[in-house]
Amino acid sequence: MIILLSQDAGPSAVITELKGLGLQVEVLHLGDRTGLYARDPEGQIPADSIARIPGVEQVMSMTPRAPLALATRESGGGRCISIGPARFGGGFVSVIAGPCAIEDAAALESIARLVADAGATVLRGGAFKVRTSPHSFQGGGLEALRELRAASRAVGLPFFTELTDPRQVEQAAELVDGIQIGARHMQNFPLLLEAGRTGKPILLKRHMAADVEEWLLAAEYVLTTGNDQVILCERGLKSGESHVRYLLDVGVVPWLKQRIGLPVIVDPSHAAGDWRLVPALARAAIAAGADGLIVEVHPRPEATRSDALQALPPADFARLMEQVRALAAMDGRQLATATATASAPRASETAGARNTAVGT
Amino acid sequence: MIILLSQDAGPSAVITELKGLGLQVEVLHLGDRTGLYARDPEGQIPADSIARIPGVEQVMSMTPRAPLALATRESGGGRCISIGPARFGGGFVSVIAGPCAIEDAAALESIARLVADAGATVLRGGAFKVRTSPHSFQGGGLEALRELRAASRAVGLPFFTELTDPRQVEQAAELVDGIQIGARHMQNFPLLLEAGRTGKPILLKRHMAADVEEWLLAAEYVLTTGNDQVILCERGLKSGESHVRYLLDVGVVPWLKQRIGLPVIVDPSHAAGDWRLVPALARAAIAAGADGLIVEVHPRPEATRSDALQALPPADFARLMEQVRALAAMDGRQLATATATASAPRASETAGARNTAVGT
Amino acid sequence: MIILLSQDAGPSAVITELKGLGLQVEVLHLGDRTGLYARDPEGQIPADSIARIPGVEQVMSMTPRAPLALATRESGGGRCISIGPARFGGGFVSVIAGPCAIEDAAALESIARLVADAGATVLRGGAFKVRTSPHSFQGGGLEALRELRAASRAVGLPFFTELTDPRQVEQAAELVDGIQIGARHMQNFPLLLEAGRTGKPILLKRHMAADVEEWLLAAEYVLTTGNDQVILCERGLKSGESHVRYLLDVGVVPWLKQRIGLPVIVDPSHAAGDWRLVPALARAAIAAGADGLIVEVHPRPEATRSDALQALPPADFARLMEQVRALAAMDGRQLATATATASAPRASETAGARNTAVGT
Amino acid sequence: MIILLSQDAGPSAVITELKGLGLQVEVLHLGDRTGLYARDPEGQIPADSIARIPGVEQVMSMTPRAPLALATRESGGGRCISIGPARFGGGFVSVIAGPCAIEDAAALESIARLVADAGATVLRGGAFKVRTSPHSFQGGGLEALRELRAASRAVGLPFFTELTDPRQVEQAAELVDGIQIGARHMQNFPLLLEAGRTGKPILLKRHMAADVEEWLLAAEYVLTTGNDQVILCERGLKSGESHVRYLLDVGVVPWLKQRIGLPVIVDPSHAAGDWRLVPALARAAIAAGADGLIVEVHPRPEATRSDALQALPPADFARLMEQVRALAAMDGRQLATATATASAPRASETAGARNTAVGT
Repeated sequence: MIILLSQDAGPSAVITELKGLGLQVEVLHLGDRTGLYARDPEGQIPADSIARIPGVEQVMSMTPRAPLALATRESGGGRCISIGPARFGGGFVSVIAGPCAIEDAAALESIARLVADAGATVLRGGAFKVRTSPHSFQGGGLEALRELRAASRAVGLPFFTELTDPRQVEQAAELVDGIQIGARHMQNFPLLLEAGRTGKPILLKRHMAADVEEWLLAAEYVLTTGNDQVILCERGLKSGESHVRYLLDVGVVPWLKQRIGLPVIVDPSHAAGDWRLVPALARAAIAAGADGLIVEVHPRPEATRSDALQALPPADFARLMEQVRALAAMDGRQLATATATASAPRASETAGARNTAVGT
Repeated sequence: MIILLSQDAGPSAVITELKGLGLQVEVLHLGDRTGLYARDPEGQIPADSIARIPGVEQVMSMTPRAPLALATRESGGGRCISIGPARFGGGFVSVIAGPCAIEDAAALESIARLVADAGATVLRGGAFKVRTSPHSFQGGGLEALRELRAASRAVGLPFFTELTDPRQVEQAAELVDGIQIGARHMQNFPLLLEAGRTGKPILLKRHMAADVEEWLLAAEYVLTTGNDQVILCERGLKSGESHVRYLLDVGVVPWLKQRIGLPVIVDPSHAAGDWRLVPALARAAIAAGADGLIVEVHPRPEATRSDALQALPPADFARLMEQVRALAAMDGRQLATATATASAPRASETAGARNTAVGT
Repeated sequence: MIILLSQDAGPSAVITELKGLGLQVEVLHLGDRTGLYARDPEGQIPADSIARIPGVEQVMSMTPRAPLALATRESGGGRCISIGPARFGGGFVSVIAGPCAIEDAAALESIARLVADAGATVLRGGAFKVRTSPHSFQGGGLEALRELRAASRAVGLPFFTELTDPRQVEQAAELVDGIQIGARHMQNFPLLLEAGRTGKPILLKRHMAADVEEWLLAAEYVLTTGNDQVILCERGLKSGESHVRYLLDVGVVPWLKQRIGLPVIVDPSHAAGDWRLVPALARAAIAAGADGLIVEVHPRPEATRSDALQALPPADFARLMEQVRALAAMDGRQLATATATASAPRASETAGARNTAVGT
Repeated sequence: MIILLSQDAGPSAVITELKGLGLQVEVLHLGDRTGLYARDPEGQIPADSIARIPGVEQVMSMTPRAPLALATRESGGGRCISIGPARFGGGFVSVIAGPCAIEDAAALESIARLVADAGATVLRGGAFKVRTSPHSFQGGGLEALRELRAASRAVGLPFFTELTDPRQVEQAAELVDGIQIGARHMQNFPLLLEAGRTGKPILLKRHMAADVEEWLLAAEYVLTTGNDQVILCERGLKSGESHVRYLLDVGVVPWLKQRIGLPVIVDPSHAAGDWRLVPALARAAIAAGADGLIVEVHPRPEATRSDALQALPPADFARLMEQVRALAAMDGRQLATATATASAPRASETAGARNTAVGT
């Protein structure tokens, strides 16, 4: 790092202190000011500690504040994660869709078929709900998970579900095709590590107040387990605005695609909190370069017990899928489809097996 | 409004107080609770005042908090504002482009020609800069305005410039084709009124911390002058994030188009603060339904004295214009172009005259 | 709830729909508008679902959005939680102090003694650190916990430590006097339930982006376990400002004291992120009515590996404790002290509840 | 500034480019990396422009981003601005109080007397209201200003009022003792300059979304006119929280007092938006070191047409003044009072500057 000394400080006391912390130091002549170049061989001394040494005016790190050793190891944008017929990245766009919570096994399969017919390639559904209030509906648990799996197998799509407790992971991992880490658990590091160790694809939602670095470092926790099947999902940031539930950070999509070798998708449903805004946000996301979407769809939203306002009716979803297909084509990408991937492994075959990264 | 009484309060004291304020009151039976329906014939008593009356537990307004009498008078989305060859709304998309500040008359015309050739239909340029610091470059003033006008006339595009002082408006209005009200002046009500009275089209930028209602009420100030040529411009919100300069509120575009009869455009340059993100944000805006864009373009950004990081190089701008044209076509809209509007009044003819709203 | 119908909608279709959802409905005459009063006997139908019924314009809940059955069951402000010599609330102010992370067993006892001598009544120290990056120092684990306990016993103060994994809780609970739930885990509901079940006092930090309702509902998760020893801790909110690390929400202190029967303390160290601002924030918190503080203190901050900028040097901490004592006295409160405990009311008497008397 | 080159870039092309911009450049050897030290003799080249030069990886400014030449010229905290009996800073605390808007001349004098009796030393009142909606009550204008002046003279207190239009300033300045620049006009630079030129004390409110640097640079606009009578006023920041109207940034008080030679006061009324929270916020502000307060007081808040929820009833205000007096005394400061003025040092002596001695 580069250290600028106060105008009234001589370098010797600061140098002594820095060497005591194990740093290697050289003096820099900066016009009428004096600076130091300090190298920390162990990488253990934070800039904040240096800043408290008397005589130090400014500390300038020469590397990004936090190391992103794993998330950036591949050059940006070319990488593809596939799960059954779904392809995220590498020129493919995929859409995950389904109801918010699993409330009714009978209805579930019909929703699954409906989103599959419209072109979704992954099914979503909440079994273990994260509810702000302990008095709200908490989801159907393992039973719901089994229903979700049955519906998934019936329509030939893999499925994702959110897990929230490291103690659930082992048992649930035998049933699911991918694990969603919800926004509120983005920095639940024990959960990230446990989920990562299953080797299943991880859909990592950004916390509604996390900056990009915190999000990528959460991905890094998963990557340290050796699991590189991480899909990042932007779902909107908390703000003071009330016309949308969360403010979709559409700019983070190109920012990430230019830097990070992980697919990035967008959840327009939780961002908008209002189904009438969902198609526009979804189109914006794909136009900005997102590798996919995760969308809540429900044939009878007024009868749901959670997030009724944001579920898209089936006809609107089908229309959106046409727009997504056209937008992807506009920049030479392709909407992954269950039928278009006849040669790809079928959902039911890959489920339970480790999916592989496809470098297209 | 509907007033819910505290469980231990009888209605009579509250009713007396409300009648004293000039309201008409009726009692509502709400299960085991008592409510009041109160009508305020003058519309002068704020809900907040009612809320301080002892015995009142909750006050529920039956109308949006602030009256938007003028902005909503036309049903959403169908209205078009045209300025020379430019068309904002009503199935047309237009792009305003140009440098941040006018620093060099010689260079200005070449930039103007460059953006015109790429398909922009309005020229932008700052003559009276709003600079955070009094020690920064403050813009070229009236002299810059005349240069801007000359370049505009030379290439046949109308131009917008930002005004910041009600005392400038009269003199400047004789030169400009449209007046931009910058984000920091969105609630400078004397300026809004003065600008509105010129009858010129007003580009009203949203403050980086304004909610939608505040923004629309600022538009309402202009509309009260009888000037209905108001174009709303979203340019990003202040946030705690640092990967973008401001967080583009892309969701506000469909929200407004579904409710308000004014065109809505987006400024991806100030939102991103980084030219590498500008094209993606611009595409997202059009895909979400925006009626146009305002983009900073500069052939040699590293030589500018303001906002160097966000200016798009000409080649990137030309590529973006192609994408905008294709995106507009996707949902049946059309990019307005100088050549495609041979029958429309030319910029130089409409300039100085009051432009009219076109209901297509 | 109260439902306002659209001006063009008749009530009958909406009433049919509402009755189909199990609601009881009565018509309200609101001037020239029609409303409905709907009662939901099961309390299962969210207002959001009602809002999607065609013909419904506005839905007004008559109760707070989320039930806070437990946190508010006692009337505001009078309740005291005591842990050894510490007393939070009920006219007492207590200060928790110590280093950020336990790095050095030898130094730990001397810090503990130092904060005890200055008047702190609880020791703090991190054993299981929540680090944003997997590559940062992760804390000393159970070993650090035992060192913390030894130091705590040596100086006669109880201690709190943060736990982050529900699987840690059982084993750690045997060692600690109180469990801290960190801001990032505020909505880690499995952890809240597990920690609550230990019966140990829970220090529940507010997430840096949580609104008050989310925070109280997190407390509610603990309270549902039957554990009512919950101390709320405000530690600042994420914002776009950079002069402080987080924006301390000092207004939440009186807001909570006026409504909720749980003690509220403030963490000025993490809020400020800068030791020079810590004393002012700490004084502000006590002047606003906080029941206590949690403060980072370190005799040699530049040698720490985490949060070096915010640790208060011992002399500054001692001076702050004098100010806290005087501020508490100004409104008739008392700083709890280790030596004053003998004559103070015992925990179990003031709290009217089971309590862990510890250590002294 | 210090420039870090990309690892694959040689320095010569960058050096050529920098010299072309008029900079003086020296090479720095930073371990295995290469840097440049560049001096900009004119101070005209922004770091952002440098950052766009190919081969530049990072640009590190060695000075704060914006020059604060004037606001910091005196060392922090010791300066006092006095207006009649009021003293802001230099060991004195003063309170400005009064109604939000002037609605009733008869009531005004009684409020004025009431706040004077309780210990306020400046009267406040809005004549030109800044109303979000053009349809809301806009204030009483010059007529209200004369009434305010009459009440002020009757009770022997100077008064402040907000001005919003540079064209008002000259005429209004003849009547007022101090000019308030409201939050929404903090970056209305023409207004700041016009107000500054009157030589009257300027109360500069921080915009609800302004960072500290923007606020200080707005002060700098006033200071450039030669008027150094600037009092900074923190009034809360916009946030996503709804339990308070704005989030009071209490930490900015010590931050400013440690760096800037201008008095800092706090407006707890607009921050809270709820009179029940005002006293706690006010105490917090003084405990954090604020040089004063500006408080809305109204004997019958439910009858006001603006900001009814935040006006403090007279009895609560009197109690608050006692607490402010005690808090100021705690750290050796003194509440300025109208009666104590006779023996107090005169304005021109303490401020070391021209000053408007007013009224009493």
